[in-house]
Amino acid sequence: MSLIVQKYGGTSVGDAERIKNVANRVAQSCAHGDQIVVVVSAMSGVTDSLIALAKQITPMPPEREMDMLLATGEQTTIALVAMALHAIRVDAVSLTGAQAGITTDGVHTKAKITNITPHEVHALLDEVNVVIVAGFQGQTAEGEITTLGRGGSDLTALALAAALKADLCQIYTDVEGVFTADPRIVPGARKMDEISYDEMLELAGSGAKVMQLRSVEIAKKFGVVFEVRSSLSDKPGTIVKEETRSMEDIVVRGVAVDKNQAKVTLLGVPDKPGVAAKVFRALADAAISVDVIVQNVSHDATLPLTDVSFTVDKPDLAKALQVIESIRSDIGFREVLSDEKIAKLSMVGVGMRSHAGVAAKMFESLAHEGINIGMISTSEIKVSVVIEITQADQALRAVHKAFIG
Amino acid sequence: MSLIVQKYGGTSVGDAERIKNVANRVAQSCAHGDQIVVVVSAMSGVTDSLIALAKQITPMPPEREMDMLLATGEQTTIALVAMALHAIRVDAVSLTGAQAGITTDGVHTKAKITNITPHEVHALLDEVNVVIVAGFQGQTAEGEITTLGRGGSDLTALALAAALKADLCQIYTDVEGVFTADPRIVPGARKMDEISYDEMLELAGSGAKVMQLRSVEIAKKFGVVFEVRSSLSDKPGTIVKEETRSMEDIVVRGVAVDKNQAKVTLLGVPDKPGVAAKVFRALADAAISVDVIVQNVSHDATLPLTDVSFTVDKPDLAKALQVIESIRSDIGFREVLSDEKIAKLSMVGVGMRSHAGVAAKMFESLAHEGINIGMISTSEIKVSVVIEITQADQALRAVHKAFIG
Repeated sequence: MSLIVQKYGGTSVGDAERIKNVANRVAQSCAHGDQIVVVVSAMSGVTDSLIALAKQITPMPPEREMDMLLATGEQTTIALVAMALHAIRVDAVSLTGAQAGITTDGVHTKAKITNITPHEVHALLDEVNVVIVAGFQGQTAEGEITTLGRGGSDLTALALAAALKADLCQIYTDVEGVFTADPRIVPGARKMDEISYDEMLELAGSGAKVMQLRSVEIAKKFGVVFEVRSSLSDKPGTIVKEETRSMEDIVVRGVAVDKNQAKVTLLGVPDKPGVAAKVFRALADAAISVDVIVQNVSHDATLPLTDVSFTVDKPDLAKALQVIESIRSDIGFREVLSDEKIAKLSMVGVGMRSHAGVAAKMFESLAHEGINIGMISTSEIKVSVVIEITQADQALRAVHKAFIG
Repeated sequence: MSLIVQKYGGTSVGDAERIKNVANRVAQSCAHGDQIVVVVSAMSGVTDSLIALAKQITPMPPEREMDMLLATGEQTTIALVAMALHAIRVDAVSLTGAQAGITTDGVHTKAKITNITPHEVHALLDEVNVVIVAGFQGQTAEGEITTLGRGGSDLTALALAAALKADLCQIYTDVEGVFTADPRIVPGARKMDEISYDEMLELAGSGAKVMQLRSVEIAKKFGVVFEVRSSLSDKPGTIVKEETRSMEDIVVRGVAVDKNQAKVTLLGVPDKPGVAAKVFRALADAAISVDVIVQNVSHDATLPLTDVSFTVDKPDLAKALQVIESIRSDIGFREVLSDEKIAKLSMVGVGMRSHAGVAAKMFESLAHEGINIGMISTSEIKVSVVIEITQADQALRAVHKAFIG
């Protein structure tokens, strides 16, 4: 008998029919003799409707009350899923995040799980086959209702799987797994059977929208093996787990493109200690998250000036330029340039560590297509390049073809 | 500084605009320097939508999950009301029933409040001006979410007022108070300034739909003075409180008609001990609630047979007739008759105790209009008659005119 945590997202529970489908799928798992903990999101559209309702009341609703409001979305779903299971004679009990023992810090609308005490879940599993837990929510030690922010239901599922020492965590979604590239752009993209946490992290950070970074981080931290799979099919999905020796045979695991970034370049920056620190401290203080940073060596030893480029999320660009302007006199650069028409192309694979010439092959494949590279950034298992956005899809296909096929 | 509990029903918080109106009204009360606890219902229509959603999943949803589902309705409202207060710079915090310390028994969908420990409400009132509590819901000692059934938000408000030792409880609704009769039927009906608990109880049990019986019972039990008033006007409403000497000067406080009853008559019932008990036990076991019961003396001492009539809620009639049929051989009555086209007309007033001839005057006023009386039932402060439903409004006007004007 295995203990399996299954998470179903908003589209999987989008209406009464889909909720019944989820119940049937859970019932099948029960029929195998497994104990099932189901984590669900709000029905698709519900969270947005609640936010719209709040905005009708006030443009700046207090975050504590936003959590009180949004938590009703998942609470609605757990009750309906429990009803659907009862209707097909599967004993099931629903629990809010608080009832499931999910304790968080007090940072409303983006709380962090600090502790899970799953006594109630364990006790119920001894009595019934299925326990349904509201994703995305928890409560503070003082009993305040909190929510975990975007992707919060994945986080609930993975953290609960860790706390329950579950045998497997299944993340049901509307795609069949993690692909080597976005199949809408790259027709030859394949679903991967398995991928390491680190590769998944790099892909998630590179624009592959399957899961939020912090969910994968939690899974990695607690060694939770999870499977990303479709709630609409019976095919196995992609298993995400610790790196294994055999994974290194594959140089490039996946390729992703992120079209939501903008580039800022500071020209003629004094090349002396502390300058970069000032720039990125100022941006961090303004809560602007910076992704790729590139700084070249000085052109001229007698006049030590350099150029610094970095990318930010597109919606943050205007704010980033304001911040840079505000520190201009302090730093004394010559000029600031920005470009919204860029994309970041990344390829990821733990096999890169032991294979030489990977970056070179990537650059060649891009050159062959006449695609110019604006910035390059590498990590141990990733190479990212910034290119023109109009060439992004072509570049994705070219790199995928060169490494994966 | 007074502590006031204000309860707003579903229509008063039916949309964003109305919620803002409620916030403005609460803010006015705060401006007088009072501490305010606000109890709210689900926005009108929300509870029905949730029930419809559940019915799409299964015709017989488990009651525990029904409570989990329905409790989201009030939770949504408390968050929105808190937001609306913040928007006009009134410090406010929302609490679910569980957070407010409302403990109930475990009878899902119609739980009874067993205890209120309002530590959190008191603590918050020391910090902020307004605490908003979800009506209609509580939790068991084991942490299960429960709901209180119809009229549950009034119950929450009155029980909370008792527990907090509030100076006043205001029940805001869509009528201006308690009227001497339904003003849609009796043009001369007047709003009462005050009424005793007992009169309110008798009126509520007689078809006046202002409040549920058990809410008034709770108020009476704990001596909570409350005011029924409109959320759309600034006029004072009707104060409901302990009977005072001066109330006895008014013989008839109000007149009400209940058109939702049906009459069952058993003809030729053996007039011996235990027969009535069998009939009404059988009905009670089938969860059919019986209102007026009338039994006449036997016509003939040599053949002791009598007739028993009683009224039930119209939707229960078919079931009641089945129950009666099932005990026919045991009891041995001659015939059973039923009539759905009836109405119960009641007049209520503590002054009846000390005034003779009240019933006679009522019967005269009906006779004068040519209205035949089918059943009569009296209590210390109420006289009820069963008449034909087609004459109900005419009868209401006649009795109102005779006693009130």
